[in-house]
Amino acid sequence: MTTTATATQQFMSTEQLLKHWQGHRNLTRRVIEAFPEKELFEFSIGGMRPFAKLAVELISIGGIALKGIVDNNMEAYTEEGFNPKTKEDILKKWDEETGVINHYFNQISEERLQETFNLFGQYEFPVYENILYFVDNEIHHRGQGYVYLRALGIEPPFFWERF
Amino acid sequence: MTTTATATQQFMSTEQLLKHWQGHRNLTRRVIEAFPEKELFEFSIGGMRPFAKLAVELISIGGIALKGIVDNNMEAYTEEGFNPKTKEDILKKWDEETGVINHYFNQISEERLQETFNLFGQYEFPVYENILYFVDNEIHHRGQGYVYLRALGIEPPFFWERF
Repeated sequence: MTTTATATQQFMSTEQLLKHWQGHRNLTRRVIEAFPEKELFEFSIGGMRPFAKLAVELISIGGIALKGIVDNNMEAYTEEGFNPKTKEDILKKWDEETGVINHYFNQISEERLQETFNLFGQYEFPVYENILYFVDNEIHHRGQGYVYLRALGIEPPFFWERF
Repeated sequence: MTTTATATQQFMSTEQLLKHWQGHRNLTRRVIEAFPEKELFEFSIGGMRPFAKLAVELISIGGIALKGIVDNNMEAYTEEGFNPKTKEDILKKWDEETGVINHYFNQISEERLQETFNLFGQYEFPVYENILYFVDNEIHHRGQGYVYLRALGIEPPFFWERF
């Protein structure tokens, strides 16, 4: 097999990935907003977690995981630090994390992205794969939120509306 | 504001993106397989499309969209070319598309990824953003498939199982 011309080419820059992720975070914020207060914390299908719980998971990964990567800290994953009681609690924390994510993401170099890191002492992958996982995990859970909203008779935001 | 050090750094290579996408496609294939034949084509929640329809959408984008990018062809999006009647029809086409995606993806250069293309005569974005959209859209719809499976009492495949 011959080596393809694309083998060592750049797919996207770090700046483009960050913009892409924050665009997704804007959309997830709209999905949180679209839930009525009660259903955000209580509605679920098939024994899955309510969307508030999924939002807490996302908030417990993004900025905290990036900080772990930057600080070389392999502390275990936990959702215990954040126990929101209202939609407003979640949205406020969501917005705070926007700056935290930007702050730590910008401290991760191109070289570091290719190094393996044992995230949360559990997920040993190249750093870029861990970061893709954060974004993918958010899209995945938000897709579940879309089904919850449809089941509640609520029109979800457009998937392509990011900014 | 000062320019950050990361502004012109590579997040990931084209090869890494392709591997990442094909890993997601493997997982989506497992989700298709997990549905009972009848429910794949009929089950839905909140008026959404059954998972077979979502799979047809994904099959109608990936390889066809990449070919459009490579050929500079802005023909409109259509799902008319593929009308599966069985799960086996979908899985067979899914596997054929794996090679089609590899074939066309590898013809897209680093420079081309940054150029704007009017995909399907409708989505005018940089090529790398269009390709991210294909992957994101797959994760999004597959997340909906996870809810369908849970609602049917079926355990979905692990999200992190890609190869």
